[in-house]
Amino acid sequence: MTRIDKMKERRTIRRYTGQDVPEGLLNELLEVAARASNTGNMQLYSVVVTRDRVGKEKMAPAHFNQPMVTEAPVLLTFCADVNRFVKWASFRKAEAGFDNFQTFMAAAIDAMLFAQTFCVAAEEKGLGICYLGTTTYNAGPIIEALALPRLVAPITAVTLGYPAEPLPEQCERLPLEAVVHQEWYRDYDETAIDALYRDKESLEANRRFVEENGKETLAQVFTDVRYTRKNNEFFSEEFLGVLKMQGFL
Amino acid sequence: MTRIDKMKERRTIRRYTGQDVPEGLLNELLEVAARASNTGNMQLYSVVVTRDRVGKEKMAPAHFNQPMVTEAPVLLTFCADVNRFVKWASFRKAEAGFDNFQTFMAAAIDAMLFAQTFCVAAEEKGLGICYLGTTTYNAGPIIEALALPRLVAPITAVTLGYPAEPLPEQCERLPLEAVVHQEWYRDYDETAIDALYRDKESLEANRRFVEENGKETLAQVFTDVRYTRKNNEFFSEEFLGVLKMQGFL
Repeated sequence: MTRIDKMKERRTIRRYTGQDVPEGLLNELLEVAARASNTGNMQLYSVVVTRDRVGKEKMAPAHFNQPMVTEAPVLLTFCADVNRFVKWASFRKAEAGFDNFQTFMAAAIDAMLFAQTFCVAAEEKGLGICYLGTTTYNAGPIIEALALPRLVAPITAVTLGYPAEPLPEQCERLPLEAVVHQEWYRDYDETAIDALYRDKESLEANRRFVEENGKETLAQVFTDVRYTRKNNEFFSEEFLGVLKMQGFL
Repeated sequence: MTRIDKMKERRTIRRYTGQDVPEGLLNELLEVAARASNTGNMQLYSVVVTRDRVGKEKMAPAHFNQPMVTEAPVLLTFCADVNRFVKWASFRKAEAGFDNFQTFMAAAIDAMLFAQTFCVAAEEKGLGICYLGTTTYNAGPIIEALALPRLVAPITAVTLGYPAEPLPEQCERLPLEAVVHQEWYRDYDETAIDALYRDKESLEANRRFVEENGKETLAQVFTDVRYTRKNNEFFSEEFLGVLKMQGFL
């Protein structure tokens, strides 16, 4: 199997064996990740590595106690980090005007490229990963748990370990035409949506998901149960508050 | 050379040969990219592929006319895209409360993971890429050029092609300790900053960079020339305006 084919076979791993991730390997993967593109080679990111059991238990509530947070040997919290750059500037007779939203976006992008390069490299080495989208929901408690200073904000977190058997099924994806536009954006009418979502909606697992949630359509499970307006709006205010607190807004 | 070693050797490529990128290969790379993790498997992203010369020329000013935008065979604009999901919901008796900042963040993260997986796969196939950080500076003109609807915002763009010889030198990176924290964040004092930035500052290329810009320190080149407070604040307001216009704030 070529490397590209292997990348096509990837899946998110939420259950891990007891095997630890050697420090040398972890550092090698982080070195590879640091080769990712970044804004002006300023490397506006950082990562906090949590291996300690107590540390993971402290982080668990922020991730709604999803079991992989404490069960994975390693938890990595990837941050937009402007603090280190600004400190450097302050010791070099330079005044950085980096406390603003544009710089936050650059730093968040840097952090995501770093994180995803890390994950691809980790999977290449036989490890499994799971992203925690809860990171931007509960950024405040994470900042407190990790002692993140001003101009640092957590963007995402990843649990890491060796995959426990049996491996989970690979999730479906929409057909490529759903996410790719040639030359300009063609908006979707009902016929296009029907064609693009037909296979996803007819999957046995998704039909069961609708039934279990007592809903009429798969979309309703997302809008009424998993990602409600009320929660989205609540966590929007929370995260905007965090960006203000950390000096980005 | 192992794949990991190859990833360590990567560099950004801004000059390309005349060779086109076959459509089959491009689609294969996009298929691989779509296997990246994403929020709730909603795939809140899309990409616009620009191959047409006129299209690239239309995009060039938004990227400050950097030559690779028109010289690369392919320009890809990666977008946070909540529109497709909301359309799907609307045709399925579901009302998505996705017009907010938290959903924007989820979509931006999805878009970046998709983009970076694409780039790693492209490099694995011998292609070269360059990220265009200008995308969040001039998102308004890009939205217009690509006809992006409400709830879609460009996050980054990538130029793609086969690397022209000679390859550029690989850029330096800070030592790993500069970006990795064990268990919690240790803030940097002057001694730590001196140690972490010493090698970077003493590089011949960076010393020349300071001299050419008539500055006293390398940090000043970044704060006074490349990423000024004035520009950062101006483009912050621009991008926040775009997020409002597109319905995310």
